[in-house]
Amino acid sequence: MIVVKIGGSQGVSLDLVSQDIAALVHQGQKVTVVHGGSAETNEISEKLGYPPRFVTSVSGFSSRYTDRQTLEIFAMVTNGKINTLLVERLQKEGVNAFGLSGVDGRVMVAHRKEAIRIVENGKQRMLRDDYTGKIVSVNGALLQSLIKAGLTPVIAPLAISPEGDAVNVDADRAAAMVAGAIEAEQLIILTNVPGLMRNFPDESTLIPHLPRLGLEQALSFAEGRMKKKVLGASEALDLGVAKVIFADGRVTHPLFDALAGKGTVISA
Amino acid sequence: MIVVKIGGSQGVSLDLVSQDIAALVHQGQKVTVVHGGSAETNEISEKLGYPPRFVTSVSGFSSRYTDRQTLEIFAMVTNGKINTLLVERLQKEGVNAFGLSGVDGRVMVAHRKEAIRIVENGKQRMLRDDYTGKIVSVNGALLQSLIKAGLTPVIAPLAISPEGDAVNVDADRAAAMVAGAIEAEQLIILTNVPGLMRNFPDESTLIPHLPRLGLEQALSFAEGRMKKKVLGASEALDLGVAKVIFADGRVTHPLFDALAGKGTVISA
Repeated sequence: MIVVKIGGSQGVSLDLVSQDIAALVHQGQKVTVVHGGSAETNEISEKLGYPPRFVTSVSGFSSRYTDRQTLEIFAMVTNGKINTLLVERLQKEGVNAFGLSGVDGRVMVAHRKEAIRIVENGKQRMLRDDYTGKIVSVNGALLQSLIKAGLTPVIAPLAISPEGDAVNVDADRAAAMVAGAIEAEQLIILTNVPGLMRNFPDESTLIPHLPRLGLEQALSFAEGRMKKKVLGASEALDLGVAKVIFADGRVTHPLFDALAGKGTVISA
Repeated sequence: MIVVKIGGSQGVSLDLVSQDIAALVHQGQKVTVVHGGSAETNEISEKLGYPPRFVTSVSGFSSRYTDRQTLEIFAMVTNGKINTLLVERLQKEGVNAFGLSGVDGRVMVAHRKEAIRIVENGKQRMLRDDYTGKIVSVNGALLQSLIKAGLTPVIAPLAISPEGDAVNVDADRAAAMVAGAIEAEQLIILTNVPGLMRNFPDESTLIPHLPRLGLEQALSFAEGRMKKKVLGASEALDLGVAKVIFADGRVTHPLFDALAGKGTVISA
């Protein structure tokens, strides 16, 4: 069982990733896909006259400010456009893909962070009415029943709060939680860089192998969005996933390269 | 087992419909929902600078012209926004709703009508590159397995062609095919009028009961979008559904009123 996380950043080739997923599925491998959608949500938000806003938390993480209207655009783009078209593309490759988000059947439950403390112009302030969340549980049994029926789940990064609010969740960490819940052996996180670099963006500083103990230190030098991937890797290993691979999604065989050890391999 | 089709036209109260669905589900009734999305797709298409186009077929049916870009907007709005928010709303009412479209797991397979003969300014011409389809099969077993797991399917009006293209399908006829496939006893089609009228929009000509044999004649006096509902009713009865009800989705208890016989009841 492999979980593949496809980045929402521009540059990752969905065609090439889909072809590799199909080849793996046709070899008998079970694959579950989790995808993002940040770049396309930004584009469509701009077109709809509701440009995205990003905030930086006091602990230094950057994230999308998701008021109710942003949440609805995010759901529309990730669960409607990206998810549907990815399922269609996989179906064309002969994979019986099945799209869902964590809201469906409460597959992913997240605590909504209604108020977050952010840093703006050097000052701290509270931001309210945010629809983002941190996943607390994934219904692995429901995903397993889809997989047993011969389906390939394709999951959009939305979860539901215990109160029933849909929330935007981080797709890397969602992929980690899903990998743990379905007892995947490997989690491959595809992105638009070759892997984790000690001095981003100097590719000569790519780290080919990182032991679990090196993850905490990696958090200090990982750039921007790579920080959340490092957190996701850590969570996946904690949940029993044997190996996490950060790999380049822009190459001809993104998944076969990753499985052959290219990128950054993180293991216990 | 009841299938409820919620119209995409403005005026139908999703809050009130969701409350009735929840009350039925809590009584132990099994409900499957099929929804449309035409009004909202039009709105968002306009905002994105890609206004909708409608065409009239030679047989007199009006439908959306769905080129590839329109298909992607249609998928985004119906499967992303409307479906996700409806699932969220039902989850808030305590219903374990599960959203999907016919593309997922090939639940609804449709023949794509790549070229349609239309009438424009009194002249006939062929329109190509259209992504609409006519459903030929529904995977009732997959829907039944979700229902048996305690889930309430919520289905967006997209299907997949045998070649793997996502296509826009008519939601009324999708609801009819779904009702047949899951062996529902009743299909309730909610809309923003009180039912089928002999002389639309004169509500005093509402037809409270229509025998199956009256459907063909109804096709001649049904207005615009009601024509497809009449076709859907006919298809549902052919597939073994005992009763089809056209009911008003704008009232306080749209489903309980329909089940009590309000609207237009069509039976064998």
